[in-house]
Amino acid sequence: MSDEEWIRTGVGASDADSITLMGRDVASELMGKVTFTELTFLLVQRRLPSAGEARMLDAVLISLADHGLTPIALAARLTHTGAPDSLQGAMAAGLLGAGSVFLGVVEDTARFLEGVAGADDVRAAVERAVGERVDAGERVPGLGHPVHKVQDPRTPRIYELAEETGQLGPNLAALRIVAQVHEQRTGRTLPINGAGVAGAALADIGFPAELLRGIALVARTAGLLGHLAEERERPIGMGLYREVDARAVYDPPDA
Amino acid sequence: MSDEEWIRTGVGASDADSITLMGRDVASELMGKVTFTELTFLLVQRRLPSAGEARMLDAVLISLADHGLTPIALAARLTHTGAPDSLQGAMAAGLLGAGSVFLGVVEDTARFLEGVAGADDVRAAVERAVGERVDAGERVPGLGHPVHKVQDPRTPRIYELAEETGQLGPNLAALRIVAQVHEQRTGRTLPINGAGVAGAALADIGFPAELLRGIALVARTAGLLGHLAEERERPIGMGLYREVDARAVYDPPDA
Amino acid sequence: MSDEEWIRTGVGASDADSITLMGRDVASELMGKVTFTELTFLLVQRRLPSAGEARMLDAVLISLADHGLTPIALAARLTHTGAPDSLQGAMAAGLLGAGSVFLGVVEDTARFLEGVAGADDVRAAVERAVGERVDAGERVPGLGHPVHKVQDPRTPRIYELAEETGQLGPNLAALRIVAQVHEQRTGRTLPINGAGVAGAALADIGFPAELLRGIALVARTAGLLGHLAEERERPIGMGLYREVDARAVYDPPDA
Amino acid sequence: MSDEEWIRTGVGASDADSITLMGRDVASELMGKVTFTELTFLLVQRRLPSAGEARMLDAVLISLADHGLTPIALAARLTHTGAPDSLQGAMAAGLLGAGSVFLGVVEDTARFLEGVAGADDVRAAVERAVGERVDAGERVPGLGHPVHKVQDPRTPRIYELAEETGQLGPNLAALRIVAQVHEQRTGRTLPINGAGVAGAALADIGFPAELLRGIALVARTAGLLGHLAEERERPIGMGLYREVDARAVYDPPDA
Repeated sequence: MSDEEWIRTGVGASDADSITLMGRDVASELMGKVTFTELTFLLVQRRLPSAGEARMLDAVLISLADHGLTPIALAARLTHTGAPDSLQGAMAAGLLGAGSVFLGVVEDTARFLEGVAGADDVRAAVERAVGERVDAGERVPGLGHPVHKVQDPRTPRIYELAEETGQLGPNLAALRIVAQVHEQRTGRTLPINGAGVAGAALADIGFPAELLRGIALVARTAGLLGHLAEERERPIGMGLYREVDARAVYDPPDA
Repeated sequence: MSDEEWIRTGVGASDADSITLMGRDVASELMGKVTFTELTFLLVQRRLPSAGEARMLDAVLISLADHGLTPIALAARLTHTGAPDSLQGAMAAGLLGAGSVFLGVVEDTARFLEGVAGADDVRAAVERAVGERVDAGERVPGLGHPVHKVQDPRTPRIYELAEETGQLGPNLAALRIVAQVHEQRTGRTLPINGAGVAGAALADIGFPAELLRGIALVARTAGLLGHLAEERERPIGMGLYREVDARAVYDPPDA
Repeated sequence: MSDEEWIRTGVGASDADSITLMGRDVASELMGKVTFTELTFLLVQRRLPSAGEARMLDAVLISLADHGLTPIALAARLTHTGAPDSLQGAMAAGLLGAGSVFLGVVEDTARFLEGVAGADDVRAAVERAVGERVDAGERVPGLGHPVHKVQDPRTPRIYELAEETGQLGPNLAALRIVAQVHEQRTGRTLPINGAGVAGAALADIGFPAELLRGIALVARTAGLLGHLAEERERPIGMGLYREVDARAVYDPPDA
Repeated sequence: MSDEEWIRTGVGASDADSITLMGRDVASELMGKVTFTELTFLLVQRRLPSAGEARMLDAVLISLADHGLTPIALAARLTHTGAPDSLQGAMAAGLLGAGSVFLGVVEDTARFLEGVAGADDVRAAVERAVGERVDAGERVPGLGHPVHKVQDPRTPRIYELAEETGQLGPNLAALRIVAQVHEQRTGRTLPINGAGVAGAALADIGFPAELLRGIALVARTAGLLGHLAEERERPIGMGLYREVDARAVYDPPDA
């Protein structure tokens, strides 16, 4: 590869008359022909999705878009309080909180399933993998939710849509077995949570585990924009600061 | 309003059995029923779009998603080079460059049109507004493009789709007049650019000018994720750094 | 300038045996010889400060470093709640709120003083400039503070240090006149605030107005790191989220 | 702890007449009395440093402040290209690249030394720890540098200053043994690098490993501000984009 050719990309290109994304002409092949969801699939997987895959990606994006006044939404709103002129700064601040604690479960579940979903004997593989976690006193990713203690409403809906669209693949199937095995092992019934089922569904439509956090980030931008639109109309950032500041107990070190 | 009630939101809520976004049950009313694009519209405008509005929003999101190895994409890739473990950091870094120079035109065009599109005599209002800009030696937002000098391929496609879907409203109409008046005034033919037509189209489907940058940011996250997916497979960030570092001429101040 | 030479920098360079910053050898000329504050001055102004200038910059950095549980500190802490593995993400989220509302006053004051501090008749220039603002119903930057209503404790200290170090230049002098003229004009006594006096002091030691926000950002990183160190020991982010979430009134649009 | 008292902080507080940081009055006890470096130490360690500790922290901050046109500096400059109105966005983008690849070594070295520096027989502990890494084919953190192949100029300077100031503690001592043991084990002489020696020096003056990345981030803000000050005068971001865009080979997937 010559010196001149190491800068290569398939994402986007343009010349005087055309703009292309992943080899498709934007004006004639994409705009008006595919949805933004289908474009997102194309940009990551370098191919357009089937109708079923697109429907699953839409459902997952919607399921991850927002969860109310989370730390992520609050960080974005408080950033807007101090820098209302930079909408991109408030959006970026919100995304920065989409780390291991909340959205990491999407990725963690997919990685956990990677180790079992392709096994010859899936149940045996799940029993081993769940057993190791339980014995080590670790959580099994994708199970349990602090609010949705009996059932996460997103989970049965994802399974229903996966069946409808023919996208119920090895990861979603294995995740069900994970929940059953966990219950048998521990005697505790933990529901499959929305982040976990999202990870399994995205893996089944071809997304690699290492990029699932990115899909969750795309989903969150819509939620964050909703919060910032609302913050401009009915702010809570300044009120939150004032209340925290008024209630704060000052507790310095001994001098 | 009592002390307890100033924290209000319509964006998202959840309880043990359900999750709601803008008053819609996520599992039964949104997942599998609407697209992520329709959800984005709902989260910002607090109502679901018509089919035509959704199609226009999809087309605009696609038109703004990516433009190749822009400063935005390069900043995201270089951030990934130093912090590959934090995908959210690389995405956020990319969004932070989506400021006044590139995506600002979307918003600037919509604000410019706000002043003329609702006038009784639109052409007269445009002549006044364009005249002021031209006389002041300022650019008219939405016109001209460094690469697409004759025609931006996105522009005729947006007008075509707007007609097809019945969404060709006062802003898109006024923008055409802006281009005509500018040509008559200056003798120079400048095409309506993709950012400008996006701003007009978004205004016609109800988005306020102050939030248009946010729509552009949602669009860009898909492009950025495409770049980061590619960067993980075929990195250019480290090579770019090495070449810049090797070529850099050190030019310190006199000591 | 040839194609190969447009990549020029004076900031930093290194070869096999040495590292240089602004033309000084890091190991032999900077480490152990100057403070980080002097280095910051050097990196921005391309020369080392005098002892008096360095003392003023230290005082200003300290005065701007932190103000308790501000929106900036809260955004950093909430980001850490969701992404504890990315300290750089939490720090960056905090900086993103250091925009026009809080730290912008530093820059705004310096820009306001630029227009009057160099005038032949400073008092006359101040009277004109303050008069214009007051007549337009606008605030005069650098005056007034929501908490320090009578006197901002940082202000007399900066003036005292500026006299001690011989750094009381035209901007600090003009800012005093601004406060006097404002009082005469309006009958209201507003104290010079800490952000305003910081802007004037930084201008007097040679920092251009357009970079003052950057100095404030350097100062804030220390405060943010203090908050994040504390957050790891005694977190408030998760508690804040839980309380907000519990108290939030859900107020969706009519469906 | 009552409901009202869980919001506690020792970092900062203010009332009508005073501002306090870690229990010190900002105006009378800190401004003009301590340096910004000493304040940074206070904010993280909740005590003021000795003169020797402060001198070491200054030296380390300077050693980490900048390394020329790194990915971090380039990301900040490219972000400024697109959003010149948001200095905080460009600074934040730069910090976001200060992750595991570059500045992570500071933290990794300190964590590695944690396991050996306090052992009864340090040499035996180092031999075990280095042996494990070497046998596993892993790098020993703190050793080797792509540019400074024989000696990193910062390393002898830090040891010299540590001796001068009486701050050569168990971590710096153990790091020397690490380098010796590594050489005996592998037959390869790798120099102690600047990031590694910074980690050891910071550990010796009391900073916990988990916050070292934060110290590196404070250091980097000065370097980033230097780059952004220069970028405003002599930009390279736009030129870099243009060249990359012109040279990019478009390599889309097969349609």
